Parts: sequence; C-alpha cells; structure tokens
Amino acid sequence: MTRSPLAPAHFALMPEIAGVRLATARAGYKAWERADLTLAELAPGTTVAGLTTRSRCPSPDVEWCRAHLPQGHARALVVNAGNANAFTGAQGAEATRLVTAKMAAALGCPKAEIFIASTGVIGVPLPQDKANAGLDAALAKLRVGSLATWEQAATAIGTTDTFPKAASVTTTINGHAITIAGIAKGSGMIAPDMATMLAFVFTDAAVSAPALQAMLARANAVSFNCVTVDGDTSTSDTLLAFATGAAGNPPLTAPDPAFEAALTDLCRDLAQQIVRDGEGAEKFVTITVEGAESERAAAVIARSIANSPLVKTAVAGGDANWGRVVMAVGKAGEAADRDRLSIRFGDTVVARDGAVVPGYDEAPVAAHLAGGEVAIGVDLGIGEGRATVWTCDLTHGYISINADYRS
Amino acid sequence: MTRSPLAPAHFALMPEIAGVRLATARAGYKAWERADLTLAELAPGTTVAGLTTRSRCPSPDVEWCRAHLPQGHARALVVNAGNANAFTGAQGAEATRLVTAKMAAALGCPKAEIFIASTGVIGVPLPQDKANAGLDAALAKLRVGSLATWEQAATAIGTTDTFPKAASVTTTINGHAITIAGIAKGSGMIAPDMATMLAFVFTDAAVSAPALQAMLARANAVSFNCVTVDGDTSTSDTLLAFATGAAGNPPLTAPDPAFEAALTDLCRDLAQQIVRDGEGAEKFVTITVEGAESERAAAVIARSIANSPLVKTAVAGGDANWGRVVMAVGKAGEAADRDRLSIRFGDTVVARDGAVVPGYDEAPVAAHLAGGEVAIGVDLGIGEGRATVWTCDLTHGYISINADYRS
Repeated sequence: MTRSPLAPAHFALMPEIAGVRLATARAGYKAWERADLTLAELAPGTTVAGLTTRSRCPSPDVEWCRAHLPQGHARALVVNAGNANAFTGAQGAEATRLVTAKMAAALGCPKAEIFIASTGVIGVPLPQDKANAGLDAALAKLRVGSLATWEQAATAIGTTDTFPKAASVTTTINGHAITIAGIAKGSGMIAPDMATMLAFVFTDAAVSAPALQAMLARANAVSFNCVTVDGDTSTSDTLLAFATGAAGNPPLTAPDPAFEAALTDLCRDLAQQIVRDGEGAEKFVTITVEGAESERAAAVIARSIANSPLVKTAVAGGDANWGRVVMAVGKAGEAADRDRLSIRFGDTVVARDGAVVPGYDEAPVAAHLAGGEVAIGVDLGIGEGRATVWTCDLTHGYISINADYRS
Repeated sequence: MTRSPLAPAHFALMPEIAGVRLATARAGYKAWERADLTLAELAPGTTVAGLTTRSRCPSPDVEWCRAHLPQGHARALVVNAGNANAFTGAQGAEATRLVTAKMAAALGCPKAEIFIASTGVIGVPLPQDKANAGLDAALAKLRVGSLATWEQAATAIGTTDTFPKAASVTTTINGHAITIAGIAKGSGMIAPDMATMLAFVFTDAAVSAPALQAMLARANAVSFNCVTVDGDTSTSDTLLAFATGAAGNPPLTAPDPAFEAALTDLCRDLAQQIVRDGEGAEKFVTITVEGAESERAAAVIARSIANSPLVKTAVAGGDANWGRVVMAVGKAGEAADRDRLSIRFGDTVVARDGAVVPGYDEAPVAAHLAGGEVAIGVDLGIGEGRATVWTCDLTHGYISINADYRS
C-alpha cells in the first residue's frame, strides 16, 4: 500500500523502556510475508491500566482484558494482526483462553496477567495452530535475546496501516527521570467516543494501577477519543498502559500532573498519527468548535462535522464549502443559532452571523485547503463550550481500500 | 451526469390532479440550460400539510413553511433548484419574503398561502433578480395555459439527481375515486430522522388540513424517514402535501385508513426512488432489523448499519462482510447480545448465534451481492422490535460528485 502523504518523514527515535522486552513473529494470519504476532514481555511487578471499545459486540480479547484489568498487574501483552478474533462465538473465546494460558505457562505467572488484543478481519476465528506456532517462535526469540525494535513491533501490529506509529516522551517524578513510549495502529473503523483501535503505552515509571488508570482515562478523553477516520467504532478497540517501575521512582499512588501531562502528550501524538494514516487520507483536518452551549455539545458538533461525508469530500476536493459545515452543525441536534454562527477555514473567517462575510475573498482559503493540514473553526456564539476533533478527508482511496478488503 | 443504474426504465405514467396546474421556467440559478423554477398553482380551498427538516440550522424557506402550515390552506408552491437559500442571513429571509409576496399578489391571496422550497448550494443568497424573472416567466405560462407535465416539474426541482422521481396512486373515499400524485428530488445530503430533501404530494381528495397532517406524519415515518444516502441531514428538507378537494368526496376530517395506506405507498415509492438516485449509487440496499429490544432500537441499529461507510463500501465491492455489520450493530449503542446475533444476506443466513454458520457457502451470497438489489437482515434475538431502512452503496461516484460540487 502506498505510504500516506501525511506520514512523518522518519520513524520516531524511540528509547528502550527498562522492564519491556519485545519480540515479533510470523504467525501467518493472512497471506502476507511479514511478522503479524507481537509479544511484549513485562518485568514482574508491572502495573497495567486500560480502556476498551464501547461497542455492544466486543471481541473476546476485549472481554478478557476487561475481566483482568481490575487486578492491576501484567507480565505480557500478545497482539495478533490480520484477524480480529471478533464475532467468532465459542471458538473465538477458546482461542483467547489458549493463547493466554500458553503465555502464562511460559512465563510462570497467573493467566490474569496476560493481556491480548487482535485486529483484522472480523468473523473468522483466530486459527489456533497459527497462533501456537507464532507464539513459539516469538518466545524462542525472547529466550535467545533476539528482540524486536519499536519499529518492528509498531509495524507488526498494523493491518491496512501505511506507516508504523510510535512516540515517546520523558519527564521526571520527584527528580527521577522516567520515559513513556507508545505504539498504535489504525487505520479504518476508527471513530471517537471509545478507546482507539489498538494502542499500547509502556513506561519505566512506578505507578500504581489505580493512579495509572485515572490518568490514562483522562489522557484518552482528549486524545484517542478526539479522532475519527470514518465514524465506525471497532469491536476491538483497546488502549493499554503498562508501568514497569524500573525507573526507581517512589511509586505514584495518585495522579501526578507532570506524568499525566507527558502521558497525554504521548497519547495525542499517537492519536494524530492514526488520523494521518486514515484509510485514503490525503489531508489532516483539525476541527475546533467553540461558543457551544457546553463542552459536551461542542464535542458532539465537532464529531458531526468530522464524520460528515459531505464535509470530508469537500476537504478532499479543496472546496471551502461552508454550507456543508452549516449542515453538519444543524444535524448534530445540539443548540445552535444559525444567525450567530461563524465559520473559519485556516485563519480566514468565511462566514459570520449566519451569512458569508462581505467581500469574501476565496483565494487565501483555497490556498489553505490546497495544503495537507486543514483547520476548520466554528464559533456558535451562544456559550463557552469548546472541543477539538482530528480527522482526515474522504477520498477515492478510502473506497478503493474498503470495497476490496476482506477477500 | 450518467443516469443511475438503479433508475426505473421509464418515467411513471402520471395522472392529472384536478386543481393543480404546473409551470416551469429557467431562472438561471446555476449556469445550466434547463428549467430550475417550478410553480404549482392550487385551486382555492386546497388544504396543506407538511414536515420539515429537524436541522438546527434550517433555511428561511423552511422557516416560512413552518410558520404558515398551521393555517392549513395553500394557493401555490414555488420550488427553486440550484440554490438552497440556506445560511444566507437577512438577505435569504428577504428573498423568501419577496418571492412569496410576488406570488400572493399575482394570485390575489394571502401571503401565508404561498409555500416555498429551495435546494442546491448552501450559503449563497437566492438572487432576487433571477427569482423575479423566473417567476414572471412561469406566471406567464400559467396565464396562457402553457402548462408543464409532471416529468418536466420533477426534472426542474432536481439538482444532482440523475432521473426525475414521481409516483401516483388511486383509491376511493366513500365511493369517490381519488388520486394522489407526488414528485421528489434527492440525491445527496439525504439522511433519516427527518422529512426528506424535497417531496411534494398532490391529491384531488378533500381532506381537512389536520387530518392530512396526521396521515402525512405517519406516512413519512415509514417512508422518507427510513431512507439514507449519506447520513447528512439537509438544512432544507421539506415534504408538503396538498389536497385540492376537486374529487368531490365528502371532506375527510379525520384520518381514513384507505387514503392513509395509499398515501403511505406513494411516499415509500418516492423515498425509494431517492435512494435509487443516491449520489454514486450502484446498489439499492434494504436493511431489516428484527428481534431488537424495541422498535426504536431496531431503527437506530438499522440506521447505524445503513450509514456505516465500511458496510456501504463492502456492498459496493460485492463483499459479504458480515463482520462490518456486527461492527455497526455494536456501535449503535442499543442493547445487543453478540452471541444471539444472526445475519442474512439475501435469503442466506451467513452467521447465527454470534458466529459464521457451519459449512458457510459464499457462492449464493456472492451471487446476491453481485446484483443491483441487496438485502441485509439482522436478527438480534432479544425482543420484538423491527425496522426497515433503505440505503445505497458508497462508491467512487459519491467521491467524484462531492469532491467537486460547489465550484
């Protein structure tokens, strides 16, 4: 697949996280010549926090993570790419149990400390023979120290992704330098109001599971929950954060502002990378809504704009079609007063008080829309509510990718 | 624009409706060589009922109709195509007032009895000089009896439509034969939970305005409110019904089962024609949800499936991707039990009790999806709620049309 035009020039410089060892292997879930099983072995004592999809039809992997997050400890993460193991009935749940049991036996830990996520086609049970062989290969690599890089792991968890997504940040906790690294994958079935498709965050900080969960939930709300590619919420969305404690800081037992800010920056970076690799994406679009009745209303309106196929195709066509933005504001169902509405493309206000501005000059707006980074601003003029959502345009590429994916 | 592959072979045979006189003219709202202003003169005593968009940013034409529907009488309908006169501030409202005042003066009736609808680009005020000239031309045609056919009127109200949409039905009221005829236009910015884009229904029956309103609201709920092309609700959706009374039946002052059934059939026919002309549509898709917790829940789930870009692109690609249907059920937010869910394409059950059926044979399903008429059935297995929604596939045609519409 052609690399997204919005991809970063280079893979990020990624630090090692003490307490995390990565391995990848080729289970062969699809007919592709690449690693598609990723293993992260975590040092004893690692804490875990996570968020999963709000889909009413979640995968058995998601149910497994939900069931075992409350105990707060993790020794390994297994990620399968190419098969979501979702909507696979008893066979799917059995596959989840087998993989986690095998990993627990290999590490000599409780099964509850093995976390698992799968992504890919829905409706086909995870083939247990392939999973077994892949796990054996990955475990062998861990044993001999043939470890994977972040770039290899970020690549192995992808499906229709056109570039691997990773980011890292550093901060200090009580004078102890700590590092947070994360990887994520997209790139369709991505919608807000959820945890994202798959994203995994690792830190060497010592953080109690409840504190990590509280900070992760808030970071998620302003990062992964603020992106959308196609408005289609996955059955498998999983965001997990692991804290190995190897940095040696006095363990955080309550949220820490510096750590939370760093975690939030990292999550936002990964979330935006997912949008930059949205299926068929040619433009990265930031939608900011202000002046709404409430923050919640602003978020609903921002998502209505971000998910509108007519707005997304207008952006694809470089068309400053503010009428479609008005349409999306109107259909959101939240309070709006057409005659107080103003709309901005880039830095140019194109409409104010419910009509196009006098002497509107399309030239600077057309220039803005011709670029790869588009900003749409809406001011409702009726309150203080504010929200930002990131999305991409809707192009022929999306149709090409999705009218011929499963086969 | 190429005629939709889902278009009917011929324009429907349409009867005259006594009390209705049609004229079309070229106002020139866009740079096109076709009539774009439609006038329906209605006999004195004609009653009216209507439904308009639930958009929070409605057009001034919609506001005009809403304000004047309660008085229940109509002498004329004016329809502008190529300019929606929406989000046009005080200038737009002024244009609405001028057009209706001019018509009322020409017919010697109260302004409140003139109804108006406009469709096309949003954000550009309706040019009053063009509206004036178009109205003069149409009024001149009415005076000399140079009337338009239903086909000419149905064509003149269109924008990106690739075929004119019309239907008629007959029934009897207390032994009096009566006829109902309707025209409608699409074909983007079409979403459920509203009155549709523009649809106009005319009958020679004598029906009080309140009775007509009650029957129209129920007919709308199972016809126009059950279609979606792109999930984008317009600022201008308007459904109006006019009853001239020329059939001579004793006036209906309460809903009549036979009339309501005929009206409902007509509305469903028009609504399905709109879907058949959905932008880029190559397949007509009927989505039936049953076994849901309630009728409301069934409708929400059916719309979630119908509006999912991943489901719509799968249909475009002829891919029986039941996993995407599961995804859309899950994201709808209504009660669902993954392990009781069954999914059908055409007459073939592909998944039952939360997993693919044993020995699933894709051949008959692939054959069904290769045709122009696709049926997707979902049984949630948890209640009695049932709903049907009609939609179309999402193709390269939609992107081509909408990435280059306004300019």
